[in-house]
Amino acid sequence: MSEHELRIALPPWVAEVVEWTRPYPDDDTRMRLAITLAAENVRRGTGGPFGAVIVEEETGRLLSIGVNRVVPENNSILHAEVIAFMMAQRRVGSYTLGAPGLPAHTLVSSCEPCAMCLGATLWSGVRRLVCGATREDAMGARFDEGPVFPQSYRYLEAKGIAIVRGLLRDEARAVLESYAATGEIYNG
Amino acid sequence: MSEHELRIALPPWVAEVVEWTRPYPDDDTRMRLAITLAAENVRRGTGGPFGAVIVEEETGRLLSIGVNRVVPENNSILHAEVIAFMMAQRRVGSYTLGAPGLPAHTLVSSCEPCAMCLGATLWSGVRRLVCGATREDAMGARFDEGPVFPQSYRYLEAKGIAIVRGLLRDEARAVLESYAATGEIYNG
Repeated sequence: MSEHELRIALPPWVAEVVEWTRPYPDDDTRMRLAITLAAENVRRGTGGPFGAVIVEEETGRLLSIGVNRVVPENNSILHAEVIAFMMAQRRVGSYTLGAPGLPAHTLVSSCEPCAMCLGATLWSGVRRLVCGATREDAMGARFDEGPVFPQSYRYLEAKGIAIVRGLLRDEARAVLESYAATGEIYNG
Repeated sequence: MSEHELRIALPPWVAEVVEWTRPYPDDDTRMRLAITLAAENVRRGTGGPFGAVIVEEETGRLLSIGVNRVVPENNSILHAEVIAFMMAQRRVGSYTLGAPGLPAHTLVSSCEPCAMCLGATLWSGVRRLVCGATREDAMGARFDEGPVFPQSYRYLEAKGIAIVRGLLRDEARAVLESYAATGEIYNG
């Protein structure tokens, strides 16, 4: 690998945890997978307490997943959502999941996206965003979420992205709290 | 390369254009390099009209560079600033350029960062942000910049990041305009 090249990989345990061939037909099922990914990432010590999944909205087909890899990869960009977007776009062969001919896609994240990931959501081409834990929950676990304001969400909605917040919030927050007790808080 | 792995590389021409061993002691010199990277990226057809560099603030040592790679890599995350952050953090071996023992770092971008990149700037650990073309210039070239508001900048400043905007703006905007005439506008 040259000095000007980067490799980004998911942790090997993902293959044991994720069932790629089953459908994820509703938001609860999708969110449970995102939360499981976050929890396993903490339990196995492979990153921060965040998980994300991207599915085809109508069929429930799983397109990609992401877990937070900031600390182990020494890379502040590698939030769960960012990895899920990059993997999904490679799979469909387009820089936008909203390209002509593609089905509508949904991002399901175990926590409301930080400022970087909310911006990335807009560029990703997903048509829906579903969040578990809230900004306040993340801050309660000592994570900064950056410059996200009520009008940030309205900006995405005005661009045609439907947004659901607080789904399975208690379960999602519990993972943040379990990490905050012992894990390394970056962006604190 | 496995299905769950990504490789990110700078275009080969970067080696011809960037002088890694000379210092970039002042903001003008740094911005000229960022604009040159943006212009060469357009001229050589390797991505969008954006370039970024990260330097050590005191010594002017060049740590990393980035150019926009969204269209050729089918990856909406690969803005110039994001690539520069990832490369810089790998070089210093930390997920933050503000880690104890590291010198202060500055990001110089040929255009004001979009919402994603402004969030990423906060997590990167740089202490200064210097921008060339403005949000209005990018929008004039039909690029959306996402949910960035005046209070977004104030949020970063409150976290200790010094911000300079509009440096060599005319030269930086000229690259956007040259691309807008013929190039593919993503996030339009």
